[in-house]
Amino acid sequence: MNPSQTPRELLIGGFHAAIAAVQADALLPPYLAALNTDRLLVVGAGKAAAAMAACVEARLPQTELAGLVITRHGHGLPTRYIEVVEAGHPLPDAAGQAAALRLLDRLRQAEPDDQVLALISGGGSSLLSLPVAGVSLAELQSLSHALLLSGAPIAEINTLRKHLSQTLGGRLAAACRAQVSGLLISDVAGDDPAVIASGPFAPDPSSYADALAILARREITAPASVQRHLLAGGAGEIAETPKPGAACFQRVEQQVIANGRTALRAAAGYFESRGVPAVILGDTHTGEAREVAQVFAALAREIHRHGNPWPAPVVLLSGGETSVTINESASDAGRGGRNSEFLLALALALNGLPGVYALAADTDGIDGNQDNAGAIIAPDSLTRAAALGLDAPRHLRQHDAWGCFAGLDDLLLTGPTRTNVNDFRAILIV
Amino acid sequence: MNPSQTPRELLIGGFHAAIAAVQADALLPPYLAALNTDRLLVVGAGKAAAAMAACVEARLPQTELAGLVITRHGHGLPTRYIEVVEAGHPLPDAAGQAAALRLLDRLRQAEPDDQVLALISGGGSSLLSLPVAGVSLAELQSLSHALLLSGAPIAEINTLRKHLSQTLGGRLAAACRAQVSGLLISDVAGDDPAVIASGPFAPDPSSYADALAILARREITAPASVQRHLLAGGAGEIAETPKPGAACFQRVEQQVIANGRTALRAAAGYFESRGVPAVILGDTHTGEAREVAQVFAALAREIHRHGNPWPAPVVLLSGGETSVTINESASDAGRGGRNSEFLLALALALNGLPGVYALAADTDGIDGNQDNAGAIIAPDSLTRAAALGLDAPRHLRQHDAWGCFAGLDDLLLTGPTRTNVNDFRAILIV
Repeated sequence: MNPSQTPRELLIGGFHAAIAAVQADALLPPYLAALNTDRLLVVGAGKAAAAMAACVEARLPQTELAGLVITRHGHGLPTRYIEVVEAGHPLPDAAGQAAALRLLDRLRQAEPDDQVLALISGGGSSLLSLPVAGVSLAELQSLSHALLLSGAPIAEINTLRKHLSQTLGGRLAAACRAQVSGLLISDVAGDDPAVIASGPFAPDPSSYADALAILARREITAPASVQRHLLAGGAGEIAETPKPGAACFQRVEQQVIANGRTALRAAAGYFESRGVPAVILGDTHTGEAREVAQVFAALAREIHRHGNPWPAPVVLLSGGETSVTINESASDAGRGGRNSEFLLALALALNGLPGVYALAADTDGIDGNQDNAGAIIAPDSLTRAAALGLDAPRHLRQHDAWGCFAGLDDLLLTGPTRTNVNDFRAILIV
Repeated sequence: MNPSQTPRELLIGGFHAAIAAVQADALLPPYLAALNTDRLLVVGAGKAAAAMAACVEARLPQTELAGLVITRHGHGLPTRYIEVVEAGHPLPDAAGQAAALRLLDRLRQAEPDDQVLALISGGGSSLLSLPVAGVSLAELQSLSHALLLSGAPIAEINTLRKHLSQTLGGRLAAACRAQVSGLLISDVAGDDPAVIASGPFAPDPSSYADALAILARREITAPASVQRHLLAGGAGEIAETPKPGAACFQRVEQQVIANGRTALRAAAGYFESRGVPAVILGDTHTGEAREVAQVFAALAREIHRHGNPWPAPVVLLSGGETSVTINESASDAGRGGRNSEFLLALALALNGLPGVYALAADTDGIDGNQDNAGAIIAPDSLTRAAALGLDAPRHLRQHDAWGCFAGLDDLLLTGPTRTNVNDFRAILIV
């Protein structure tokens, strides 16, 4: 290890290396150079949409550019030709609804010899979720909220969204006669274009029947308009989302240009260049955040006590998307996203184990509903918390990891990163 | 890999190697040879107690032996000089209560120049839990049941037991004037003699106040007699359990002779001798079984897809004690212990991933409340289940992994193993 860097500095450096590797400016240039067109209609949605659009403008000064992309509030950037609209995420809002309708109209008006560039990234599902006729945004919001609270994985939430949307589940592809090149930054395990942003340009293998089954399984009573639409769809009265093999997809070519692994490998390179061997434990980790933390704690104990399966120093890197199940009946303060909650549970499970430091953060820069990307823990986190009068177990029980880390001044603050490859976790054992 | 063995046979072989390494007959002889005494009063409790007692009789034919050990129903063995009593576990019963009282009396009658051999193993906490005056066995059972259902870790359950018992938390040491040699088979992380079987011969760092705090945190309303006793203890009206440094422990010497690591290393040796590299991921894994499975599934995916951090074939070994939280309001069938539940969740998370096989079992041979030690999964487990009409996700939701694996004929049946080093998990990626 480089003795001039503290463990905390190393972890922050590794996170920034990870984020830098999945920035639009680092990813897009070779794909844009290959486009070879004079005119380009640019559409897009997601947390990286504005950064991707700005990169297109900077890199294609000779191309006649037009279009519209939708990004999350706070993730915008100034652009000249491609309009950037900021909208609601994770809960859709009216700004997104209006922008999605205009985006859909732009695509409908495109001619067969036009060239469309679609810039898709995580978050696009909410930002594009233009509800079907008869379902209001408020009803869609209420359903999304119930699904998020139920602990439903994102794949299930998106099956619902696709069947209640005019844009998702391949409907943008179906609406467009032009050639479409899609560039996708993946925030989902497996990098399936049908899953990223709920696949506005991808075939949808899911059905109305699946959507209904998810509601039943999660014991969610959907608004009456939603029930009506899904039941009508299930009965064949409304067209299904376009399925694999549909003609519209012959005009579409999509490429995944980055994912969580891209970020983890960049972080691994950063740590190894500083003398810390890095191990990638996977980029598809799911599960309840506080329980996932137990497993990583046991592995850290194994390394600390037995130098097995790797001797210290070593950094364990992982990505994916953990979840936090909120018990609505409890008085959950609910400040703190899944990465902060993971980290607080990890600190409690490690219980001050010497030599173990960790950083966990959302690569989009916003973990949950507060302003932090994540947080950092050290062997002294719990003793410092106790000295400050912070009841760490209580913060965890109340899903208020944010409050604990804010009190400790151990929040990781980056602001919006304008990209999104989901969770980033680094556990450093020295 | 040895081509003559199937993955299933390999996994079963690895488990049997693990169990064999933690049998009394494999562990005790060197310690018994060192005892050097003509007369020995043997006491003990735990799932290994009968096997340990039988080994003492076989190995010390010249020693005058007497005494009493308590083991779980079904874990007994025939002995000649050392009485073996079978009793209730995980819920204490009248047989255990009567035997614990007799065991306590034997220790009280021992003279200072007597030599006591204490044979302690997991399960001893329930088997020895002679309640304090004023608290009935039924009340203790009801409390134990509520604690188990609340998902309280075993350390918390044992803090309660120690403060409601005449034997646990060092009280057997306090009752005895003789020299005590303790041989312990550990089923707990860290191998603390104060935690193994709730430490009948070990100093107890926990207090009446801790016991009361656990009840509050787990939101358990204890029987009135229990509340009364704990509150009286908390107010200093009843003597605390003997604390570290107490004089009674000068006569006691305890040695941990095996733990989960002993079993995992034996399994590792078995797999490696058959050409399968083995990785021990830790012997202190805790967490909700179905969530722990998500993490192991992500790691198995990483190995399968990327040959990282180890190329296949490799077997991932781990131990510890996961938990299963039962939602009492749901119609949980509840057939299936934590290892079976882990395994069913793992199969669902892997979703048929090729080349991944796994075995998870309780090393005592009884996983939960059925007759199986655990179970085995293969890449075809889910398709086979579906073909048999088994709804695997529903079995998991209802905590009925046993029913699913019974239907698949994939239960692992060993009968009582007469030892206990807690969970054993092996995930084989070929």
